[in-house]
Amino acid sequence: MEYKNNGVENIQIAYIGGGSRGWAWGLMSDLAMTEDISGSVLLYDIDFEAAKHNEIIGNRTKETEGCKSKWDYRAVASIDEALTGADFVIISILPGTFDEMYSDVHTPEKYGIYQSVGDTTGPGGIVRALRTIPMYEEIALNIKKYCPKAWVINYTNPMAVCVNTLYKVFPEIKAFGCCHEVFGTQKFLSKVLKEELGIDGIAREEISTNVLGINHFTWITSAKYKNIDIFPIYKNFCETHAETGYENGGDDNWMNNSFLSADRVKMDLFLRYNYIAAAGDRHLAEFCKKNYYLENPSRVQEMKFGLTSVDYRKKDLAKRLERSARLVSGEEKFKFSATGEDGVKQIRALLGLSDMVTNVNLPNNGQIPNLPKGVVVETNAVFKADSVNPVLAGNIPDELFPQLSSLVGEQELVVRAGLEKNIQLAFDAFCSDPLVDIPYDDAYKLFYKMLENTRKYLSMYEF
Amino acid sequence: MEYKNNGVENIQIAYIGGGSRGWAWGLMSDLAMTEDISGSVLLYDIDFEAAKHNEIIGNRTKETEGCKSKWDYRAVASIDEALTGADFVIISILPGTFDEMYSDVHTPEKYGIYQSVGDTTGPGGIVRALRTIPMYEEIALNIKKYCPKAWVINYTNPMAVCVNTLYKVFPEIKAFGCCHEVFGTQKFLSKVLKEELGIDGIAREEISTNVLGINHFTWITSAKYKNIDIFPIYKNFCETHAETGYENGGDDNWMNNSFLSADRVKMDLFLRYNYIAAAGDRHLAEFCKKNYYLENPSRVQEMKFGLTSVDYRKKDLAKRLERSARLVSGEEKFKFSATGEDGVKQIRALLGLSDMVTNVNLPNNGQIPNLPKGVVVETNAVFKADSVNPVLAGNIPDELFPQLSSLVGEQELVVRAGLEKNIQLAFDAFCSDPLVDIPYDDAYKLFYKMLENTRKYLSMYEF
Amino acid sequence: MEYKNNGVENIQIAYIGGGSRGWAWGLMSDLAMTEDISGSVLLYDIDFEAAKHNEIIGNRTKETEGCKSKWDYRAVASIDEALTGADFVIISILPGTFDEMYSDVHTPEKYGIYQSVGDTTGPGGIVRALRTIPMYEEIALNIKKYCPKAWVINYTNPMAVCVNTLYKVFPEIKAFGCCHEVFGTQKFLSKVLKEELGIDGIAREEISTNVLGINHFTWITSAKYKNIDIFPIYKNFCETHAETGYENGGDDNWMNNSFLSADRVKMDLFLRYNYIAAAGDRHLAEFCKKNYYLENPSRVQEMKFGLTSVDYRKKDLAKRLERSARLVSGEEKFKFSATGEDGVKQIRALLGLSDMVTNVNLPNNGQIPNLPKGVVVETNAVFKADSVNPVLAGNIPDELFPQLSSLVGEQELVVRAGLEKNIQLAFDAFCSDPLVDIPYDDAYKLFYKMLENTRKYLSMYEF
Amino acid sequence: MEYKNNGVENIQIAYIGGGSRGWAWGLMSDLAMTEDISGSVLLYDIDFEAAKHNEIIGNRTKETEGCKSKWDYRAVASIDEALTGADFVIISILPGTFDEMYSDVHTPEKYGIYQSVGDTTGPGGIVRALRTIPMYEEIALNIKKYCPKAWVINYTNPMAVCVNTLYKVFPEIKAFGCCHEVFGTQKFLSKVLKEELGIDGIAREEISTNVLGINHFTWITSAKYKNIDIFPIYKNFCETHAETGYENGGDDNWMNNSFLSADRVKMDLFLRYNYIAAAGDRHLAEFCKKNYYLENPSRVQEMKFGLTSVDYRKKDLAKRLERSARLVSGEEKFKFSATGEDGVKQIRALLGLSDMVTNVNLPNNGQIPNLPKGVVVETNAVFKADSVNPVLAGNIPDELFPQLSSLVGEQELVVRAGLEKNIQLAFDAFCSDPLVDIPYDDAYKLFYKMLENTRKYLSMYEF
Repeated sequence: MEYKNNGVENIQIAYIGGGSRGWAWGLMSDLAMTEDISGSVLLYDIDFEAAKHNEIIGNRTKETEGCKSKWDYRAVASIDEALTGADFVIISILPGTFDEMYSDVHTPEKYGIYQSVGDTTGPGGIVRALRTIPMYEEIALNIKKYCPKAWVINYTNPMAVCVNTLYKVFPEIKAFGCCHEVFGTQKFLSKVLKEELGIDGIAREEISTNVLGINHFTWITSAKYKNIDIFPIYKNFCETHAETGYENGGDDNWMNNSFLSADRVKMDLFLRYNYIAAAGDRHLAEFCKKNYYLENPSRVQEMKFGLTSVDYRKKDLAKRLERSARLVSGEEKFKFSATGEDGVKQIRALLGLSDMVTNVNLPNNGQIPNLPKGVVVETNAVFKADSVNPVLAGNIPDELFPQLSSLVGEQELVVRAGLEKNIQLAFDAFCSDPLVDIPYDDAYKLFYKMLENTRKYLSMYEF
Repeated sequence: MEYKNNGVENIQIAYIGGGSRGWAWGLMSDLAMTEDISGSVLLYDIDFEAAKHNEIIGNRTKETEGCKSKWDYRAVASIDEALTGADFVIISILPGTFDEMYSDVHTPEKYGIYQSVGDTTGPGGIVRALRTIPMYEEIALNIKKYCPKAWVINYTNPMAVCVNTLYKVFPEIKAFGCCHEVFGTQKFLSKVLKEELGIDGIAREEISTNVLGINHFTWITSAKYKNIDIFPIYKNFCETHAETGYENGGDDNWMNNSFLSADRVKMDLFLRYNYIAAAGDRHLAEFCKKNYYLENPSRVQEMKFGLTSVDYRKKDLAKRLERSARLVSGEEKFKFSATGEDGVKQIRALLGLSDMVTNVNLPNNGQIPNLPKGVVVETNAVFKADSVNPVLAGNIPDELFPQLSSLVGEQELVVRAGLEKNIQLAFDAFCSDPLVDIPYDDAYKLFYKMLENTRKYLSMYEF
Repeated sequence: MEYKNNGVENIQIAYIGGGSRGWAWGLMSDLAMTEDISGSVLLYDIDFEAAKHNEIIGNRTKETEGCKSKWDYRAVASIDEALTGADFVIISILPGTFDEMYSDVHTPEKYGIYQSVGDTTGPGGIVRALRTIPMYEEIALNIKKYCPKAWVINYTNPMAVCVNTLYKVFPEIKAFGCCHEVFGTQKFLSKVLKEELGIDGIAREEISTNVLGINHFTWITSAKYKNIDIFPIYKNFCETHAETGYENGGDDNWMNNSFLSADRVKMDLFLRYNYIAAAGDRHLAEFCKKNYYLENPSRVQEMKFGLTSVDYRKKDLAKRLERSARLVSGEEKFKFSATGEDGVKQIRALLGLSDMVTNVNLPNNGQIPNLPKGVVVETNAVFKADSVNPVLAGNIPDELFPQLSSLVGEQELVVRAGLEKNIQLAFDAFCSDPLVDIPYDDAYKLFYKMLENTRKYLSMYEF
Repeated sequence: MEYKNNGVENIQIAYIGGGSRGWAWGLMSDLAMTEDISGSVLLYDIDFEAAKHNEIIGNRTKETEGCKSKWDYRAVASIDEALTGADFVIISILPGTFDEMYSDVHTPEKYGIYQSVGDTTGPGGIVRALRTIPMYEEIALNIKKYCPKAWVINYTNPMAVCVNTLYKVFPEIKAFGCCHEVFGTQKFLSKVLKEELGIDGIAREEISTNVLGINHFTWITSAKYKNIDIFPIYKNFCETHAETGYENGGDDNWMNNSFLSADRVKMDLFLRYNYIAAAGDRHLAEFCKKNYYLENPSRVQEMKFGLTSVDYRKKDLAKRLERSARLVSGEEKFKFSATGEDGVKQIRALLGLSDMVTNVNLPNNGQIPNLPKGVVVETNAVFKADSVNPVLAGNIPDELFPQLSSLVGEQELVVRAGLEKNIQLAFDAFCSDPLVDIPYDDAYKLFYKMLENTRKYLSMYEF
């Protein structure tokens, strides 16, 4: 890459995955609207066709109205071609197909275990991790070989497991994991401030927070807007709305869209623990003991959040693929819309174009002193020229420690299981998961059934 | 006290509690059979009558056959009288009465939560802790006032909570907590060695172990007999016996004595985690998720251990009280029998008469590096003249970390609840307990019902 | 204070000290040139006259050309008046007078110990600390009483000792210490980049650094300008210039101004350790063993830095006082010039008006994992609405650990000496100081002579 | 090996080194007088002749009066022969010859740096370390290859550097380092108790201590004899004797024997820091700043300890070699005398024959919480069947931290220098050493002169 005219040209980005289209298009949009950086994006996906389509769509951005910087997109057939010379690597893959995810999410239902997402924790998250870890081992080794100095941004779930694997396999890697769930909570808090204090138009970045925990079970231990302490205001809000949920009305609510909720879980957790749970309700619920929010479908209904079925996801994808076809054929015009994600801002910061502080997932090196070193945690971090340094977030509060410490331990065990190809360790993790409250024999049957269902992606394990 | 003739005379021991007789008589026996120390024991119990009876029985030891050292026993009416001038303080109280314990153990059964002991963890342990902590606050303050340099030996449950409270209230206290559950496991391992290798007569002290964890959920991570690594031998033993249990036959088995078991839990835990669970099955089961071993009474039956009912305890006590009456009247003669406990040996070591290494409960100051500082843990420690120093036990193994970290967090929360008189924190701990897998509303009702039942001892809390 | 029109009004700042004028005027300038904040500054100095003069000069800023925000200045006669209602407290005092400082700096010369500054470390720094700590104890107690929630910014030396004392006396204090020495090094590095690469006009903020160490012996372990790693460039520069020094020519060099240097020390330290020493040479030299750079005046001359005499300081002050008189009388007009300090930017950030990352002094809570907790260290930190969170700076590199660990230990000992009024501990620290390489008896005589000379400010100690 | 008749037979010990005879004969004596263990000792020395002589002498023990167990001795020509099948490895080598040691000890004298021992720290210790580390690298690799499960006991100096190297090269090694200096201090304390309290005949093991620090600069932070706190008694003793020294009279004093002292250093250190320095004065002095005790020969004379010259050592060795010849020829009869060392007791403990607690050198894994992990420290440890676990010794006291932290840092740097073959790091360590207070240029010349003098053993380094 080359620094010129207060910007950087010829940046090379390797995009691993992206076949599911959504994330890729968002990135294209954000890149095209960022004036001072340009270069090329090499698209690698195990579905080469998908990459090829993204190439066509990506290159269309150059003629799209509002384009401020021109990026070249090129689909490549091998990961080494994508990585060689890369300055940045973005990973956003689906580990396996929706068929495997179908098993992850729905097989446990036969034993009364319901999962609202099933990609991060719980039975589904654990089995997904087992097939993801070997993929990430390979990616890490390839990065070590082809672009050891590149910055690596992970978007794949299970987030903590992916980032953990990258660092365990290649400790010198410059990787971090990004997730927008905390942003969503900041937006929610700005709605709270509007509702409670009548202050309108607060941008999420203006909600200053201290973040700690693990991805999708992240907590805000301090939240300020200017000199206003948001905690007492949020407490009041929760006392009003926790019982009924906070709904915007209109079509776009949790009853029609299984990605949404009425934030009852989030508010209930605040009233229990006095700290702000900072992720969507569907994610938060899965980290709690089954009897909290996922006891059964009627409890979920009562708590006003959705169980995202894989059929729903398949339909969702089908729509995106149709749109992809239209974009490829030119029938539909690509339009820019800012994603609100931090990815491109982080790239600019790492290039030294402007500093930023945002929450990311990194191995614990003391940013959370009362969790073990090496587990992957989410906290704020400072992004500057070629560096990401976590901010000292402080101890996990006593109220949250029993759950959070157990969950980081569970994730560590899963990563070891994947790296050592040790199914017994994975089953230990499985049994310790808060959603798995079924008798031992049932747990055993369920676990092996889930492995069996996804055996295609688990050939490196013996079972 | 006075050092004379290679021994120590005029030692003063304050014995707080002991109304239940059993522990007190054991101590009397051990003291009388130890040649080189002598002195007086001041007995303080809220039931003065009980202390008075112990005084009479204790003083009888001087004329009992086999007495090697003469100790004077004296019941006192106030704790300050007991503590003033004390070199050692032994605490062994029942926090509340069996009526409160009845509620602790049996109220949860209405919600399908069965407890095999109910005095350490689980709903019963937590509520018991709430009434114990204020008592221990008072004891700690009295020790600070009347005998700040005395060594304090705790036998009361919940062990970790008691020791934690003593240190939080008076950080300079010289206290530790003793428990014989690890000893029992060492004895079990010596049976294993007999069974598997035909080696007979191994004393428990000859089983060299590294111990870590929390009281009653303690683990052995290394066990050697001479140059023999016991782990593979125990593995073989468990593979043979875990399914059926290991029973001695005869009357004295778990079906007749609810304090006993066939060690199925212990062996099952070994086969799951590859570390030796080192406590009685009844204790171990309570720290695991309900679905492991305490799902329901038939699961308990199948796992061949007992649910100790409080009625059983009451009968047990009644027998001891009858025996007490006979001993007081002289109808029955006191007979010495070594308890196998380490208490008197520890006293000798602290007096500088001989060093020893044994497992005790102490605040974590790094002996278990991956648990937070300050939580009370059980590891080996070196006892020498006026000092107890924990041995570095190493990290909690990954396999056990999810459970153990959560449990130490739960105990820390309970101690804070007790010291801050904050019922909400106690309820947070209650909800995070692995036995409490019932819906939130039920948990709430159960918790407050249990508080209500024991309100007499909870007047310092608001609820 | 009041948030209005995207800014904050009615902010109340307590300024403790400032009698020496320089710092106070700089702040006045920076405040007046910052559009979106306004309020009042209460000036408290033990020399009320000095505060009064600053009041007059400060209030003149409102009519000065270029004034963007109007601040009211008011001298107050007591510290409680200054602190009551304060949102921010700025502390910039001279502990004692230049007479005491004369003893600090020059008495050791009789024993062959030369100090280039004498206010932070070495014999002078230690004795200065002994009179500073009791003053800071009192300030901390007053802040606890009158404005416990105020943000406290310390500029006084010895910096680490002052900040340490504030936190030891009032652990909940929201205090940090600021120093511009790292900024100076960033400026120096931008000169290096110009010299070596021909890149002109790099602002110091564009030099992205990782900072760690203790105040005035701070180190940069990573320095980037955009994608350029500055280390190899700086190495080349040092290899060229370390022997002769880097001089700008002109009048403003180290031979005429004892505050300046030719950066030989800085470059020599880089060549020794491969990390960038980030403070002025006069400061750096004092933390090294005497035989490195302060062996004797001719060594100092050879290394091209100055020994700042207290006479020089007195003259410097006299000039400022003359200027003060002219400013008070109106003979001279106050003119604004940006100080380049971060103080006012930090205030804006703490008010939530814009985030920033800069280096500050804070107790170690893990930002430097291989130094003990609680010692005061300098690292980067994130400033946001009502919060300062240190960035994880990483371990002290092995090459620097022998010196830095010893120095933080020395400072800790001095703080304990001051708080416990224990002269023996201070003498232990004195003897361990790297400049004190004289025989024990001489060290003893020197130490007590220095105490004697400054007894007026040491009445709380017994000696 | 074989467990039989309450003992162990056929133990195989590899003895690496021993050419200097003294240590080897002591071990032979201790082994022969220990009833319940027997086996063979394979002697490997680079001087095969020396090993051969030891073989002859060792085998004579079997016919010596008082022999309780028969050990076979056999000299072997290669290290792999010695190690293959070894249960224990004892390492006691001289790294280089007395010619190299002559340079280590006496070259610095030309620059005014006097060393009383010169084998552990200071210029001599550092250069000795540089030639020792590659030897220990090779030994560690051989142990890994030939007997990875053997217990390794190191007696070679520089102790900490040797043990550190073994662990860095082969982290799974079961090694520890033994030194009798603390024992000597315990004996000294028993003399103190006799002198001050008239208590006679206290064995050193009865002085119960908490030990921490680094080898040869070890400290006792708590010392009890029964219920007697030795600290105030020792303080009184030091106040009486520190000025003049404590001498036994007779021939065997420091004036005639350069290995002895009048303990003035030890007592002076107590009066300075209130902790008991626990090594011989000659060792202690070398870890302090030069101006403390080693300023010049007259200061040493005044402090009443000896500078052991290498000529003295050569003469000492010559005498042992003469005796060796007499023992080999049979002219002189071997006689047993207990060494008072713990080596054989440790072997028995590791065999599971009886537990023991003693001080040893091990990597810090938290036994001293405020020192970095991984540096080699000396504390008490528990020896049991196949395990050595350090006892939690607590933090280095504030008073000692500046010196001790710097010294462990220096040693770490030396080990890295040796392993990375990086002379610059060694020179950094050299410059930071407290004895090196000479100007930089002189330090540079001295260092390279010392390297030059010993180049024969430093061929793996570039300089």
